[in-house]
Amino acid sequence: MPRGRTNPVLVTRVRRDVDGGGDDRRRRPDKVVVEEPMEIRLDDHLVTTTMRTPGHDYELAVGFLHSEGLLGGHPVSEVRYCATGSAVDTGFNIVSVSTGGRAPEPTARLGTTTSSCGLCGSTTIDDLAERLVPLPGPPIPLDLEVVLAVAEKVRAEQELFASTGAVHAAAAFDPLTAEVRLVREDVGRHNAVDKVVGHLVLHGGVGSASEQPPVERQAHPPEGPHGAERDRRQGLFVSGRVSFEIVQKAWAAGFGLVAGVSAPTALAVETAQRAGITLAGFLRGDSMNLYT
Amino acid sequence: MPRGRTNPVLVTRVRRDVDGGGDDRRRRPDKVVVEEPMEIRLDDHLVTTTMRTPGHDYELAVGFLHSEGLLGGHPVSEVRYCATGSAVDTGFNIVSVSTGGRAPEPTARLGTTTSSCGLCGSTTIDDLAERLVPLPGPPIPLDLEVVLAVAEKVRAEQELFASTGAVHAAAAFDPLTAEVRLVREDVGRHNAVDKVVGHLVLHGGVGSASEQPPVERQAHPPEGPHGAERDRRQGLFVSGRVSFEIVQKAWAAGFGLVAGVSAPTALAVETAQRAGITLAGFLRGDSMNLYT
Repeated sequence: MPRGRTNPVLVTRVRRDVDGGGDDRRRRPDKVVVEEPMEIRLDDHLVTTTMRTPGHDYELAVGFLHSEGLLGGHPVSEVRYCATGSAVDTGFNIVSVSTGGRAPEPTARLGTTTSSCGLCGSTTIDDLAERLVPLPGPPIPLDLEVVLAVAEKVRAEQELFASTGAVHAAAAFDPLTAEVRLVREDVGRHNAVDKVVGHLVLHGGVGSASEQPPVERQAHPPEGPHGAERDRRQGLFVSGRVSFEIVQKAWAAGFGLVAGVSAPTALAVETAQRAGITLAGFLRGDSMNLYT
Repeated sequence: MPRGRTNPVLVTRVRRDVDGGGDDRRRRPDKVVVEEPMEIRLDDHLVTTTMRTPGHDYELAVGFLHSEGLLGGHPVSEVRYCATGSAVDTGFNIVSVSTGGRAPEPTARLGTTTSSCGLCGSTTIDDLAERLVPLPGPPIPLDLEVVLAVAEKVRAEQELFASTGAVHAAAAFDPLTAEVRLVREDVGRHNAVDKVVGHLVLHGGVGSASEQPPVERQAHPPEGPHGAERDRRQGLFVSGRVSFEIVQKAWAAGFGLVAGVSAPTALAVETAQRAGITLAGFLRGDSMNLYT
C-alpha cells in the first residue's frame, strides 16, 4: 500500500513584528507534501526513476511510458508494485509495467541524444512528429467560460495543494460542458500530467494521435468507454506553465486543447501548432491568451 | 553565439465581456520564453539532454555536473560549445565540459537505480550523504528582513519573467547583508539553480561540502575570490517550491541557507536537516516558515 501523501512537520512561522522589536516567531504543526523516488520498469527493464508524490503510481508509470512512446502501441497486460506479496514497504516505490515482452526493449533514457554537432528545438519536434500524427479534425475553439469554470473546479478538488501549497495539478475536461473528468496532483508538473494520461491509457481513453489498444488486465476498473472521437475533444488543464514536454504528453494522448494557468514556452507553441492542438495560457482574473 | 531568450508571438487576448454578448478578443504581439534542448557532455561522453532557456549555458553544464557529483572533485579545464569555430548554429545547444579525462567516466544517467526490490527517500539521502559531508559550523539563523529584501531584489532583476511570465529564478545572496550576488533565470527551476551553482564552481566559489579546486581555464573571467569560509554563509533563493533536488544542489555547492517562495517537500526538509542547511519557505506577504 502506498504511503501517505503528506507528512506532519513542526514549523516556525516567522512574521514581521509591526510594533518593532524583532520578529514574531510561533511554533506550530503543519503539513508538507511527500516526495519519494519511484522506479519505472517496462517488461523487467529499468526505464527511469522519478521523484513523485505517492498515489496513482500505476497511472504515472503507464502515462510516462505512453508519453515517451515506449509502449510502442502495445497493450498493457499487467501493472504491479515490486512489493506485491512482499513485506518490504519500499517495494511500493517500484512499479513494473508489462506488455508481455511485446514492447521494444527500452534503451538507456538520455533524453534526445545526438551524435553529431547539431541539436535544436525544431529537430526535437521533428522526432516527435515521426511517431505522432497531427490530430484529425478542426481545432477545438477556446471557450473562456469553460476554462474559467474548469480552473475553479480543479482548485476546489486540489486536496494536496490546499494542505501543503506545494503541488501541481493536471486535469482532463470536456471543452464543451466544462465537466472535469479527472484531477491528479503531484510535486512534479510532468508527473501530474502523466498520471492523467496513464489513467486514460489504462481505461482505453487515449485519443487518435497514437493507437493504443485497451488493456487486458489492470489494477483499476474501467470507468466507461471514451472513444477516440470523443477524446479528440478532451481538454487538458495544467496549474502551471506549459513547456514543450507538457504539449508532447498532450499530443501523445490526443488532447485537442491545452489550457495552462501560466504562460507557454516558444517550443510549446510551435509543437502545439504542429500537432493541431489549441493552446491557451496566462489565465489572469477573467482573461487568458490564445497562442494557436 | 546563443540565440535570443524570448520569441515574439501574436496572441489573442480573450477577455470576458462584462456587457454580455460573448468574449472580447484582441490580437496583439507578445513574447514567449525560448526553450531549447541542450546536450551536456563530459570529457566527450554524453551525459544528459535538458530543456532549457539559452543563456549561461556553460554555467548550466558545469553546475549540473557538479550537483550530480560527476566532476569527482576534479577541476574544469575547458568548457566549449560544440560549434566553436563552426558555422552550425545548432551546435550552440551542445556544451562540452572537460576535466582532461580526470573525471570518472559517466554512466548512463537513469537517476537513482536499484537492482533489488526496495527504494525509498531515506536511501536517496543516504546515497547523497556518501559523497557529501554535513556543512560545518553552526546553522545560519533566518533573518526575515534579509529574505524579504532579497525576494524584492530578485523580482526586480527578473528580466525574462517580466517579459514572459514563464520562468523561474534562483539567486545567491549574503544572509547577513541581503546582497544579491547572482540571479539566473530558466524555464526549468532546476536549471536556474544549476546555473548559479555552475557560476560558483567556475569562479571557485563552492562551499565546503565538496572540494572543488578552481578552474584552470574558463569562458567567464573570475569575479573575485569567494573562500569556503565565506560561502558557508551564502544563501540560495528560489522563486518556487523547494524539492529534494534543489536541496541536493544546494548541499553540493555548500549553501548554508535555502529560501523558497513556495513550500518544500518532506524529503527536502529531511535532506536539509541531514546537511545542516537552514530551510525557509512559503513566503507570504511579510511572513515565512522555517522548516529546519
